[in-house]
Amino acid sequence: MVIIGGGFGGLYAAKVLGKAPVAVTLIDRRNFHLFQPLLYQVATGALSPGEIASPLRVVLQKNRNTEVLLGEVTDLDVVNRRVILRDGEVGYDDLIIATGATHHYFGNDQWEPLAPGLKTVEDATEIRSRILAAFEQAEREHDLQKRRAWLNFVIVGGGPTGVELAGALGEIANDTLRHDFRHIDPREAQILLVEGESRVLPTFPPDLSAKAEKQLVELGVRARTGTRVTAIDGEGVTVQSGEVSERIPTHTVLWAAGVRASRMGKVLEERAGAPLDRAGRVLVEPDLSVPGHPEIFVIGDLANLSEAGKQLPGVAPVAMQEGRYVAKLVAKRAAGDKRPAPFHYFNKGNLATVGRNKAVADFGWLHLAGFLAWFTWVFVHLMYLVEFENRMLVLTEWVYNYITRNRGARLITK
Amino acid sequence: MVIIGGGFGGLYAAKVLGKAPVAVTLIDRRNFHLFQPLLYQVATGALSPGEIASPLRVVLQKNRNTEVLLGEVTDLDVVNRRVILRDGEVGYDDLIIATGATHHYFGNDQWEPLAPGLKTVEDATEIRSRILAAFEQAEREHDLQKRRAWLNFVIVGGGPTGVELAGALGEIANDTLRHDFRHIDPREAQILLVEGESRVLPTFPPDLSAKAEKQLVELGVRARTGTRVTAIDGEGVTVQSGEVSERIPTHTVLWAAGVRASRMGKVLEERAGAPLDRAGRVLVEPDLSVPGHPEIFVIGDLANLSEAGKQLPGVAPVAMQEGRYVAKLVAKRAAGDKRPAPFHYFNKGNLATVGRNKAVADFGWLHLAGFLAWFTWVFVHLMYLVEFENRMLVLTEWVYNYITRNRGARLITK
Repeated sequence: MVIIGGGFGGLYAAKVLGKAPVAVTLIDRRNFHLFQPLLYQVATGALSPGEIASPLRVVLQKNRNTEVLLGEVTDLDVVNRRVILRDGEVGYDDLIIATGATHHYFGNDQWEPLAPGLKTVEDATEIRSRILAAFEQAEREHDLQKRRAWLNFVIVGGGPTGVELAGALGEIANDTLRHDFRHIDPREAQILLVEGESRVLPTFPPDLSAKAEKQLVELGVRARTGTRVTAIDGEGVTVQSGEVSERIPTHTVLWAAGVRASRMGKVLEERAGAPLDRAGRVLVEPDLSVPGHPEIFVIGDLANLSEAGKQLPGVAPVAMQEGRYVAKLVAKRAAGDKRPAPFHYFNKGNLATVGRNKAVADFGWLHLAGFLAWFTWVFVHLMYLVEFENRMLVLTEWVYNYITRNRGARLITK
Repeated sequence: MVIIGGGFGGLYAAKVLGKAPVAVTLIDRRNFHLFQPLLYQVATGALSPGEIASPLRVVLQKNRNTEVLLGEVTDLDVVNRRVILRDGEVGYDDLIIATGATHHYFGNDQWEPLAPGLKTVEDATEIRSRILAAFEQAEREHDLQKRRAWLNFVIVGGGPTGVELAGALGEIANDTLRHDFRHIDPREAQILLVEGESRVLPTFPPDLSAKAEKQLVELGVRARTGTRVTAIDGEGVTVQSGEVSERIPTHTVLWAAGVRASRMGKVLEERAGAPLDRAGRVLVEPDLSVPGHPEIFVIGDLANLSEAGKQLPGVAPVAMQEGRYVAKLVAKRAAGDKRPAPFHYFNKGNLATVGRNKAVADFGWLHLAGFLAWFTWVFVHLMYLVEFENRMLVLTEWVYNYITRNRGARLITK
């Protein structure tokens, strides 16, 4: 059994397979699992990268049947069942592909260096440096118009990541940096959240979108819905709402809009004839296998599976459940069960956080907003932090940050 | 009053001046103070960069007379008393220069990319990546001779930093990674500490050097004293002891040997006629001023001052005391005291740590080695961590690491 990718999908598959009588190889380009839901806290200086990353070898240390291989997969040989690495190959009987997704600039790849997205640790430290450096530049700038541009921040995309980034930026401007400067008042920062749909958090119920928008306003964030970005350059952003076009001078644009499947989708299309959707995701069978290849499974953000006509979202709980499902399915098949039940996603609820004491939670029968939603969010994320150590560290840092409104990990690095 | 550099010297000067009736500007290239004595713990995956860095603006927030300026000093105009930045200038009446030191490869600058030194956060994450990647390469290498080379580590320089790095590497190989791999036994790693003098920690009393060497041996580190490095390339290191030359195949060489004063030394020589020593440090007056310039002070690693014929070492306590001294001196001078007492270094003792429960401490009248010395080291370092937050975080991480022998911050990053 070979698993490609040590994100939530791959890691949870590996954890279940650790108890099965199979040899498991987990391949990843990085030596750590990243707790992606908290990555925006690294990008905004509240946590350090090491606090939301766990070495894969440590997480899987107890699984004596499991080998972690640090390597980059370049191709597949589905006939001879081999995974091709940049420097070698690995044979498989069953294969789980969980390589996730990356940013998508909708045909405007030239925007990437100007408006970084948030997927990797390096993305997060880059965004952190840009945000902090913008305030530093504003402090040193005497020309008021130029200073204004340094204090404008534009976040593109009003989904959970965009809302989290915008909310955190609001807190940075209004609380964290409040007493840090002598020439500027960080509270003068203008934070704009641009969303193409008619409301922020469009995958949430409308009443929660409205509450999230209100919470954002309290943090000084203006949500500009029904608005598209039409141009980004080093001096600013052009946005368009209906017929009206506006130019916003800024040097700090963050991208939280489009997501595209990772390159392994294309490889599966070419080598295994896998059908892809427009975002490059693999349209999988109800058991998450690739059509015609019952030995190859695709899970997590790389998979496109619909339930009751609705596509499953690209979130950690889906990937985790898919990983566990496939691991159990393979074990069942080995035990002679020929027709295992199809995958079913058990939605425990959707959470999006805006800031301190501010979040929304959708449990279907129950909509929460404010402190209770936020507390649920904190609790759930601490529970899921893979390692005990991370849990303690993040908790320590959070308690301290909560009391002092400080953010300790405010490093501008190269 | 302008201070250049936010290390221990500059920061402690600024702290004292925060209570004086003067306007203070602290200039640094980075937005944070780095707790350098713990940087080796970042390089060896025990701590995260954010845990040993404090934003300068936060540390000096309460000093309403103090301004922090993020900028790079390129030159001085001592006639018109102006500090020249890459993008502007700042006038001064008194000036403190505390820009520290950098690596020195003794005329072999081509070794720098092959054998990185440990001065910046970026150095530390680079070294961390190299160490961890070497074990990963060994795990994937089937050729036994090539695997051997990946498991060889050479640290050049047997001073406190070299000893700390070597000891931490020993713990990584023997404890931290012990159960992580399937094809290699990390305990087979060979860690070589190369020192030109006849013993490690040559600035410590001989009995403590001997004890440190014994502690290193317990961690699997071999100290090769009386040995010089004569060549470094991508495939290994050549060392020479007396007439005997030996080639050690390795891909991981760490530099903890030479230190050279930062570029500001040269600027002071050129602009203020400051006398420099061979390492480029400024030979200062007994009151730490530049000869002929009572308004310019040099402190910390950039200063060369001798007491009782012995040159003060380039350690944090010296820089801190010098910073405080100069700050008070300026205040005294402003109050009319024309002949303040010269600087006197109060040596509270020298500490060097080797690993868990392993360290040496020299208090002059008392020599300690082992647990007590180590405990003193832990206590002193926690006490000095500038911010309370860092203290709690580092303490949490240390307690956890101590119990589990784990190192959580093991990220290979770019």
